[in-house]
Amino acid sequence: MSMLEDTLCRIGPLHREVMAEVRRHLDQLTKPAGSLGVLEDIVTQLGGITGQPFPDVSKKAVVVMAADHGVVMEGVSAYPQEVTAQMVQNFVRGGAAINVLARHTGATVVVVDVGVAGPVASPQVRACKIRPGTANIARGPAMSRDEAVRALEVGIELASELAAQGYQLLATGEMGIGNTTPSSALTAVFLGVSPAEVTGRGTGLSSRELAHKEAVIRSALEMNRPDPDDPLGTLASVGGLEIAGLAGLILGAAACRIPVVIDGFIATAAALVAYRLKPEALDYVLASHCSAEQAHRRLLDYLKLRPMINLDMRLGEGTGAVLAFPIISAAARLLREMATFETAGVSNRS
Amino acid sequence: MSMLEDTLCRIGPLHREVMAEVRRHLDQLTKPAGSLGVLEDIVTQLGGITGQPFPDVSKKAVVVMAADHGVVMEGVSAYPQEVTAQMVQNFVRGGAAINVLARHTGATVVVVDVGVAGPVASPQVRACKIRPGTANIARGPAMSRDEAVRALEVGIELASELAAQGYQLLATGEMGIGNTTPSSALTAVFLGVSPAEVTGRGTGLSSRELAHKEAVIRSALEMNRPDPDDPLGTLASVGGLEIAGLAGLILGAAACRIPVVIDGFIATAAALVAYRLKPEALDYVLASHCSAEQAHRRLLDYLKLRPMINLDMRLGEGTGAVLAFPIISAAARLLREMATFETAGVSNRS
Repeated sequence: MSMLEDTLCRIGPLHREVMAEVRRHLDQLTKPAGSLGVLEDIVTQLGGITGQPFPDVSKKAVVVMAADHGVVMEGVSAYPQEVTAQMVQNFVRGGAAINVLARHTGATVVVVDVGVAGPVASPQVRACKIRPGTANIARGPAMSRDEAVRALEVGIELASELAAQGYQLLATGEMGIGNTTPSSALTAVFLGVSPAEVTGRGTGLSSRELAHKEAVIRSALEMNRPDPDDPLGTLASVGGLEIAGLAGLILGAAACRIPVVIDGFIATAAALVAYRLKPEALDYVLASHCSAEQAHRRLLDYLKLRPMINLDMRLGEGTGAVLAFPIISAAARLLREMATFETAGVSNRS
Repeated sequence: MSMLEDTLCRIGPLHREVMAEVRRHLDQLTKPAGSLGVLEDIVTQLGGITGQPFPDVSKKAVVVMAADHGVVMEGVSAYPQEVTAQMVQNFVRGGAAINVLARHTGATVVVVDVGVAGPVASPQVRACKIRPGTANIARGPAMSRDEAVRALEVGIELASELAAQGYQLLATGEMGIGNTTPSSALTAVFLGVSPAEVTGRGTGLSSRELAHKEAVIRSALEMNRPDPDDPLGTLASVGGLEIAGLAGLILGAAACRIPVVIDGFIATAAALVAYRLKPEALDYVLASHCSAEQAHRRLLDYLKLRPMINLDMRLGEGTGAVLAFPIISAAARLLREMATFETAGVSNRS
């Protein structure tokens, strides 16, 4: 059995009895029942994932997968392709938004080259280049089926390693100029909707450029004719290497029973791929924010994921996911540290 | 001139030139222009409030104002009145949700008795009792005009003291069994809408109890006939002591040029009172979350405030506001610590 198949088999259901135990304890805390809202759902889910009645999510990492996209030659991005490699250097030097937010929330940044076009020579970047960027999806498949499996396994392996190192909460980040284009293509295929409904302005396209991007995605779908019932084939034909890597990270985290927080549109497209490969993987996913990219809300609704934060961010890198870390750890801490009606001598409802 | 009048006079406009300076710096950071969304608006507002091009909001406090409400004798709450005083003791002992969240975010909790019905004897509670709970608003005014002024001044004085102690970011919290009732009454008066449109289930009323609560609020408005153009008179007739105290805290923070984060429905009703006393005070307010209490969204929209977090919380105490602290400080830190396109050697858009 391949690493991917083995991983999919290992993803099991949540611990329902632990979830019930968490719910019982929540109802004894000094607050009206249910008044912590979604925070109560979050900590219940953490209990179900980890099997711990008082889950601990203090050791945290954000994995930033970087890769390039051949489709940028069609003019679908406001930024030149070289920015992917330049931003990887920025991540290494600690100057990017994700570095600041990771320092702010006590998280480790793990940078992975899963397919940057140019050379990335830094010992701090995990070298897992499957190929130097995808091929242009408007002209043919992004990558081979075998390359898609290997990119997924980059994420699966990394999740296992981080689990072995004691990480308790992961976030998905990405960097790849042009990567809203394959994300929209994947969304259109799996949701069975037209590209126009799920294509947005990315890092800042004009209306004319947006119409062109839609046309490019339509061409990619006509050229590749991806089959939504073949998730691996769809990923290979119109996906991206960092999207595959993140889908693998989600599957690996689920197999290791570690909660994984997804970021914006691209990361949610990766979660969609993971969901199509193994629906149960979604039980291990927490949505962080709702992006300004128009298709993100639609994709979250489709996956029945509820974002915690709504700040119209559209930066990627895992910035929204890491911003949700303090909320998730707050939920765990409330469960552990709040007084009960009994210990505090507070009257419950009449 | 009274302390209140003096405070209203001292509230001035934001520093527009500093806001422009912040915007210019944001556009040089290694990210697509505007891609940090509302985080960019937040840090720009912090610049305008503080006059600092790199605002610092690291010293934080949440002020929890506690008071009782005579209207509880009409049966408008699921909890008995004694819970207000019991929860004040819980705050002192550190077992309430707000204590956990304040520890989690590095904030100080300041507990104020502005009108608890029973005795509160703890050196850790600021003793500012104006009266032992309001009178029943269904039968007459909640308090006298003079008492409303004194409750407002409790908050104003506290804001000045916290400013003198170097606090850079404040949050509004409250505890008062029954306090969604005066909050709905104030909202109905100032927005000119019927009680039915702005009355919710509070800590967990049934549909029958909700209908009764609406009827009680209608009685209160018929009995007191508050004039929306007389904000002080409206506050005195159908408001609450902790609501007045928080409105004073917001006005005092604005006069001291300190940003103040409001929590849920009750705190936003306090912001509404502050706004009606001095519209410019709202420039110093940041909204944190959108509560499950139905009228909260409507009130936020009316005040043109945008919540950062959406978790269906309905606990009060300042819990939603404190949960927003890490987001606000993240915005300040991104401005200060991110690399620019020039220093990082990253290409800007083509």
